[in-house]
Amino acid sequence: MSELRKWDAKEVAKHNTPESCWVILYGNVYDVTDFLPSHPGGAKIILQLAGKDATEDYDPVHPRGILESSLPLSANLGTIDESTVAKAEPTVANNPGLVVENVPIANLLNLNDFEAEAKKKLSEKAWAYYFSGADDLISKELNNTAYSRILFRPRVFIDVTKCDLSTTIMGIKAASPLYIAPAAMARLGHPDGERGIAIACGKKGIIQVVSNNASMSVEDAVDSPVTQEQSWGFQLYVQDKREKSIDILRRIEATGKYKFVVLTLDAPVPGKREHDERAKNSGNLSLTSGVGTGTAAAGGGGLGKALFAGTAADLTWKATLPWLRNATKLPIILKGLQTWEDAKLASEESNVAGIVLSNHGGRGLDTAPPSVHTLLEMRRYCPDVFDKIEVWVDGGIKRGTDVVKALCLGAKAVGIGRGALFGLSVGGVEGVERVIDIIHEEMATCIRLLGAGCIDDLGMQYINTRALDPLIWRPENDVLEYKLKAKL
Amino acid sequence: MSELRKWDAKEVAKHNTPESCWVILYGNVYDVTDFLPSHPGGAKIILQLAGKDATEDYDPVHPRGILESSLPLSANLGTIDESTVAKAEPTVANNPGLVVENVPIANLLNLNDFEAEAKKKLSEKAWAYYFSGADDLISKELNNTAYSRILFRPRVFIDVTKCDLSTTIMGIKAASPLYIAPAAMARLGHPDGERGIAIACGKKGIIQVVSNNASMSVEDAVDSPVTQEQSWGFQLYVQDKREKSIDILRRIEATGKYKFVVLTLDAPVPGKREHDERAKNSGNLSLTSGVGTGTAAAGGGGLGKALFAGTAADLTWKATLPWLRNATKLPIILKGLQTWEDAKLASEESNVAGIVLSNHGGRGLDTAPPSVHTLLEMRRYCPDVFDKIEVWVDGGIKRGTDVVKALCLGAKAVGIGRGALFGLSVGGVEGVERVIDIIHEEMATCIRLLGAGCIDDLGMQYINTRALDPLIWRPENDVLEYKLKAKL
Amino acid sequence: MSELRKWDAKEVAKHNTPESCWVILYGNVYDVTDFLPSHPGGAKIILQLAGKDATEDYDPVHPRGILESSLPLSANLGTIDESTVAKAEPTVANNPGLVVENVPIANLLNLNDFEAEAKKKLSEKAWAYYFSGADDLISKELNNTAYSRILFRPRVFIDVTKCDLSTTIMGIKAASPLYIAPAAMARLGHPDGERGIAIACGKKGIIQVVSNNASMSVEDAVDSPVTQEQSWGFQLYVQDKREKSIDILRRIEATGKYKFVVLTLDAPVPGKREHDERAKNSGNLSLTSGVGTGTAAAGGGGLGKALFAGTAADLTWKATLPWLRNATKLPIILKGLQTWEDAKLASEESNVAGIVLSNHGGRGLDTAPPSVHTLLEMRRYCPDVFDKIEVWVDGGIKRGTDVVKALCLGAKAVGIGRGALFGLSVGGVEGVERVIDIIHEEMATCIRLLGAGCIDDLGMQYINTRALDPLIWRPENDVLEYKLKAKL
Amino acid sequence: MSELRKWDAKEVAKHNTPESCWVILYGNVYDVTDFLPSHPGGAKIILQLAGKDATEDYDPVHPRGILESSLPLSANLGTIDESTVAKAEPTVANNPGLVVENVPIANLLNLNDFEAEAKKKLSEKAWAYYFSGADDLISKELNNTAYSRILFRPRVFIDVTKCDLSTTIMGIKAASPLYIAPAAMARLGHPDGERGIAIACGKKGIIQVVSNNASMSVEDAVDSPVTQEQSWGFQLYVQDKREKSIDILRRIEATGKYKFVVLTLDAPVPGKREHDERAKNSGNLSLTSGVGTGTAAAGGGGLGKALFAGTAADLTWKATLPWLRNATKLPIILKGLQTWEDAKLASEESNVAGIVLSNHGGRGLDTAPPSVHTLLEMRRYCPDVFDKIEVWVDGGIKRGTDVVKALCLGAKAVGIGRGALFGLSVGGVEGVERVIDIIHEEMATCIRLLGAGCIDDLGMQYINTRALDPLIWRPENDVLEYKLKAKL
Repeated sequence: MSELRKWDAKEVAKHNTPESCWVILYGNVYDVTDFLPSHPGGAKIILQLAGKDATEDYDPVHPRGILESSLPLSANLGTIDESTVAKAEPTVANNPGLVVENVPIANLLNLNDFEAEAKKKLSEKAWAYYFSGADDLISKELNNTAYSRILFRPRVFIDVTKCDLSTTIMGIKAASPLYIAPAAMARLGHPDGERGIAIACGKKGIIQVVSNNASMSVEDAVDSPVTQEQSWGFQLYVQDKREKSIDILRRIEATGKYKFVVLTLDAPVPGKREHDERAKNSGNLSLTSGVGTGTAAAGGGGLGKALFAGTAADLTWKATLPWLRNATKLPIILKGLQTWEDAKLASEESNVAGIVLSNHGGRGLDTAPPSVHTLLEMRRYCPDVFDKIEVWVDGGIKRGTDVVKALCLGAKAVGIGRGALFGLSVGGVEGVERVIDIIHEEMATCIRLLGAGCIDDLGMQYINTRALDPLIWRPENDVLEYKLKAKL
Repeated sequence: MSELRKWDAKEVAKHNTPESCWVILYGNVYDVTDFLPSHPGGAKIILQLAGKDATEDYDPVHPRGILESSLPLSANLGTIDESTVAKAEPTVANNPGLVVENVPIANLLNLNDFEAEAKKKLSEKAWAYYFSGADDLISKELNNTAYSRILFRPRVFIDVTKCDLSTTIMGIKAASPLYIAPAAMARLGHPDGERGIAIACGKKGIIQVVSNNASMSVEDAVDSPVTQEQSWGFQLYVQDKREKSIDILRRIEATGKYKFVVLTLDAPVPGKREHDERAKNSGNLSLTSGVGTGTAAAGGGGLGKALFAGTAADLTWKATLPWLRNATKLPIILKGLQTWEDAKLASEESNVAGIVLSNHGGRGLDTAPPSVHTLLEMRRYCPDVFDKIEVWVDGGIKRGTDVVKALCLGAKAVGIGRGALFGLSVGGVEGVERVIDIIHEEMATCIRLLGAGCIDDLGMQYINTRALDPLIWRPENDVLEYKLKAKL
Repeated sequence: MSELRKWDAKEVAKHNTPESCWVILYGNVYDVTDFLPSHPGGAKIILQLAGKDATEDYDPVHPRGILESSLPLSANLGTIDESTVAKAEPTVANNPGLVVENVPIANLLNLNDFEAEAKKKLSEKAWAYYFSGADDLISKELNNTAYSRILFRPRVFIDVTKCDLSTTIMGIKAASPLYIAPAAMARLGHPDGERGIAIACGKKGIIQVVSNNASMSVEDAVDSPVTQEQSWGFQLYVQDKREKSIDILRRIEATGKYKFVVLTLDAPVPGKREHDERAKNSGNLSLTSGVGTGTAAAGGGGLGKALFAGTAADLTWKATLPWLRNATKLPIILKGLQTWEDAKLASEESNVAGIVLSNHGGRGLDTAPPSVHTLLEMRRYCPDVFDKIEVWVDGGIKRGTDVVKALCLGAKAVGIGRGALFGLSVGGVEGVERVIDIIHEEMATCIRLLGAGCIDDLGMQYINTRALDPLIWRPENDVLEYKLKAKL
Repeated sequence: MSELRKWDAKEVAKHNTPESCWVILYGNVYDVTDFLPSHPGGAKIILQLAGKDATEDYDPVHPRGILESSLPLSANLGTIDESTVAKAEPTVANNPGLVVENVPIANLLNLNDFEAEAKKKLSEKAWAYYFSGADDLISKELNNTAYSRILFRPRVFIDVTKCDLSTTIMGIKAASPLYIAPAAMARLGHPDGERGIAIACGKKGIIQVVSNNASMSVEDAVDSPVTQEQSWGFQLYVQDKREKSIDILRRIEATGKYKFVVLTLDAPVPGKREHDERAKNSGNLSLTSGVGTGTAAAGGGGLGKALFAGTAADLTWKATLPWLRNATKLPIILKGLQTWEDAKLASEESNVAGIVLSNHGGRGLDTAPPSVHTLLEMRRYCPDVFDKIEVWVDGGIKRGTDVVKALCLGAKAVGIGRGALFGLSVGGVEGVERVIDIIHEEMATCIRLLGAGCIDDLGMQYINTRALDPLIWRPENDVLEYKLKAKL
């Protein structure tokens, strides 16, 4: 083991080239020269910080433990003499210790208020990452407007003194069908990170699905359960190196807290999120090698693309599902289905406990259908699926009324992603709690004004989907030939 | 009886806590400590005025007589020495003695003009209360645009020298099918209050329905009839304490002026009116306990929520209708129906004389259907109802053409709420008269240009509803199974 | 005959009351006290000018000869001493001798350019009168957008070296199916007035229909024919005093220039044109007595309403058509039909040579259907009418493509109203010529790019009306019961 | 041959009239007096430059060699004494040697970015020419929004590690179905001109169709092939003087580089491109004689109209196709079809190898259908055509997703025109390369996220066209009578 010495920052600063690249992290000096080619986010972003203290950039986007598992012990060259350090200009501005200054959280009345407030508080890069959608944001906007165009059919003269939002999801009791959808990099918004969301969920009794790209380790995220029964799901991106995925599954099982696995299928390759890419473009980036076709990539790629490094694009019904069943005993939920055909296929697989209709928050393929469309397709072409497996949805939820509409259409659980991140960014744990309260309150008001009393009461009789019906896919010539199988 | 003395305002000012809470009202000093928990609007708003003269805040939102009936005689501690009073900063700015300065009322040509003018004249809080709708105002806007999208089918070469707008409503002769819908808190806008609207209605020969939450007592509102025959309706919110409702029914019957009761069904719980809640948020409010689910309420609740305190949420066809028939002999009209099913159910009840299709001015459940949609549903699925009971509508009326379209669709009477309040706010009695004149003038021009001559001439032959038809609810698979009964 | 003297303006100025009202016109002094009650535009507007020189206000809105025929000789009190005159502040600013300053007419490329340019040059009042439409301008805008939503179906590989726009209208040879629709008060925009439009039409070979409310006498308007064959139509508003209409018919027949009569049916009462009324409201007007219902009229009424004074509202198929046939031998065209039923009825009358589908330029009843809708209705429910009588349209035409679309739908002639007025306002005769050239040029380009060569080639095969089809009226339940008769 | 002398600019300047018109070009002095009447762009534009150095205006819009072939040797009067020249105020500002200053090309993420950047860099005239569309730009905008309204139907759980964009077009191997559509006057945007686009295409492996109105000669445009196999198409506007077209066909065949001819049919006469015409109007132009109808033309005509001079309007299926087959042995593609009927007719002609659905980039007839509409028409009424001939499309492509949608609908190749010009204008060859890379990258991402792997996988199963279906032409009464033949 090499002798650890205390370094002068001026000496470190000389090592700022691909040939010799050192960085300071958490007070230690590391030689990352050999690591450059294998950094999932690319060498370039490290080289921009070469010779400097990279902690502020590094911290909010890397879970604890990743450093140790990625570098050999020999890479640690010793500690830095703090008195000599010139801080790197942070390219990822994090805002620890957020203080709600002008607007008390209680005065934020809905999720749009939270989004507007988060925009003020977040760094440009974090905002861009959270906000961004694919291409022209058409799917992202459709996700929300699809709900707005559904009208209610409220019934009156019914006793609505009681209103019960509770349900069970994957056999787990939950205060409501609302859950927190997997969304990466919570610590970009607030140091409480994924754990902060977890605590809020525990307090409010709802379920959180932790992202494969969380900014905290899977253990840290769930280490502060509010109740003994608090449960989580884990979102899995299968890695090219399958052993990495096996490893993460072992770790989540070891916690005993994760009760199901959500396998992401709607992002075999990253979408084109231009807000995210532009935020990175504020630096002076040259062309990077592109994805898939060997052509030059558009822009710098953005944080979103960096996170995709190593993600497998070769998942299949035939090969991946048995492999995953073998790798874990947890219930498996498939996420990212967007057609009734895939929903039907999933329902015929014995290893599938549920599906999440999702277009990845409008971040994958622009003009992909909102999940409301897929729900309506399913009601027409495979209504039996709702009885066989749990059907969840996410994307575009901004109001309790949106949640209720999804439930009326047959959804069993309804996820919010950005909403929780914005809540966290604005006010940490308390912010997320407030977001959950708002949706719950809106749901309860809605259900009562519909003349219903509990989740099971909800159904198609309470909604009018005629504004959307003409947009729902029909087979050519209106003849449904049973073509379930895509190119398999 | 306690000795009444004259108080120094400094002494009163000391009693500004939940433990000892005094307020000055109309020159008297009251100890309201014991009353705090039972104040329908909550203790907090009183505590904000504790120790001060609260008259300016109190007056426009409380009918005469409420003070005396709410407090024991012993609460009156004496009079205030006016010379010592420091006026409370009014949180509800009322604008008594409005002067129309730049724009003569005659130059306001339509209801939009009145709305714009009212916005200038009203306090922020009053504007917010009048203007507000639920959530994202989708239903509020649909209420109006639904009319705009109906086209006329004018016939020509017909003698239209005569045009008669007169009709009968609930057997009462009226100058037109226009009526003033119940809308709370008229004195927020102008000291003439509900009585001012009544006088204008009397002069113009139309019917007014007085709100259960009027800012004047039911007696005061109708104490200045213009003609001997002038008649009113009364809107009832059934209270948790049924005896309160029995009492109010006794009082309206005693006046001999109220000829029917309108039972409100579309607001068993208050909607989420964010404009209203934000106006209240201008103060420094902490979280209040929420409605229904035990979660924290969004914002401060707003004036709208305060008014709902004590309103019953347990009304049912089976229990409430017989109870109400027993409580009053006046004809009963059900307000707030939004589906053909409920219209049909109502028409089958012998105790129901009419219904009002309404989504509560878009203030209840956002994306609830506009009454035009419900009219079209009824024409398709239960056209016979129009023959059995009177069908009224309100919501979104801005033009005489809107009224005529509703009449063509089968409505018997058509209400405006905000329009009358804005008229009152701008010019008191004269403002309301002008509003009524405008609508009447527009109706007459419309009916003549259609080639019709009186209300009974109107019908579906004069309108083209094709822009709305694709939005009207249809049963799944276009098969109508007769599912009238909601969760009962 | 009274002695004519020369008056001092100070003396005249004293006569500014209803009891003694004098005005100066064209250098003469008139006592109009007795005339006040019978002024078609109301007494008030005269009283505003009482005691002053009213020539600038009077001139552009009154045809020559009206003064002499309205006042007894005795009303002429003598001449004014011009040196003593203080000019009245003109409330109708006319802009004689317009000079096109910055933008050469040749640089105005389309009718929108002309409208924008006219807005700069016209007085506020003239602009308001020309521009205004009923209520919220919904019909006015629909008139135009209905054309925009029709798509073409161009055919290719066809010889289009030749393109012939010529046609016959009412048996009159015309350079194209374009005609100038009757529009009142041309001299408000330019001193060339209706005669200026006539000269431009003569030069370009198209037909003009002179308005009943022209600002020139029917003789003056047509006194400068460009060719011997130049022909006109005359638009008739039948007056309450039928003898007035008989008289005007005698006069137009006497000219030998008018070849047909267009009887206006879509304006038995004036629409509510708020732009027009607001322009008048710039003065300090009190409430005027309203139209029809005895209620107070909205605003001051506007120029549009003033022009309606005396217009008959009692025209009927049974009484008026025989009367008119008796009053003139000229072919009769009915203007303002908006339903297929009325088109059908007209086609069954032996005295009707043609019809004009029109909603009065969106100036009558707001949300009345655009004529494109009526054309599509007729194609569905009474296609035979196109073979029996000539079907013309006006309203919303801004492009040559709009004209071609109307022709494809079956129209025989297509009118522009505002377009000609704007052309005149911008550049007098030359401006109108340019407007006609633009439309002709656009028509020719369009017809050639469609692969057609002349007017008779056009038909439904060249257009796709699917964007409009869902908006066209259908009978309830899609069953057409043959209900031709309106309330007759 | 006249004696060549060196001229003083002052002497040249005197010859600035139609009677004696000299210009300086590339350092030589020419007497163009006799040439004025035969200049395809009209005499006026030359006279504006008479007596001056016209090189900057002349160069970017005239191919090399045109000068020599248009003027007799005797017109060359000698050289100019450069020291005496006063440069003409350029009316066509070209921007040679563009430098990308603030925005590195790599930071332009999509074609909208390129359009915005090009707008900054181009002269007003060049921008207007490139950007302009017919009339109100309705077709131009529809071209793009038609794609946006098609939704995808992505399939998941499919191995998408590989993605192959390669295809064959007219038997030529191409890196993708993307091609560069013919668009005139590339040197207006950048001195690299059409040759620059060619080099970028060569590097990226895609096909370019050179415009008949290229700003470089057909030989120069293709003189720098990147690979031996690089191939081009040539767009032909048949000229009134057929021998000119025969000549150009001989020349393209002589190069051996052009592999097919694209015969333009959608522009027998120029459309009305007002942006283009306004740019020219910045000068002081009088009315010019119009096209076709003898009426005065709108505006100055613009660059677009100038380019049309001499173009034949008399092409027909019967006469022109055999003539063209006789004139060249290259495969013939017909461009500008917009109806299924014409597509069907083309497919029945043995001499037609393919068709391009196009509305000329929205530059011809406004409200002509976008090619997406025509594709959908064809799928309904003549799906067999896709099997018989190649069907290409252009117009409105801004995203790789747009390309993929066209391919799913049955297109074999998809062209971009303005996109390439904007790329060239911003960055010359490198700019075009970047544009191609962007589209390729977007296509690959899209295809993978659809769960497909190559071009042949694509089909109707991946898209939902329900938002467009109601807009696609249907025969009257939904009965298709087989009326293929237009007016022939």
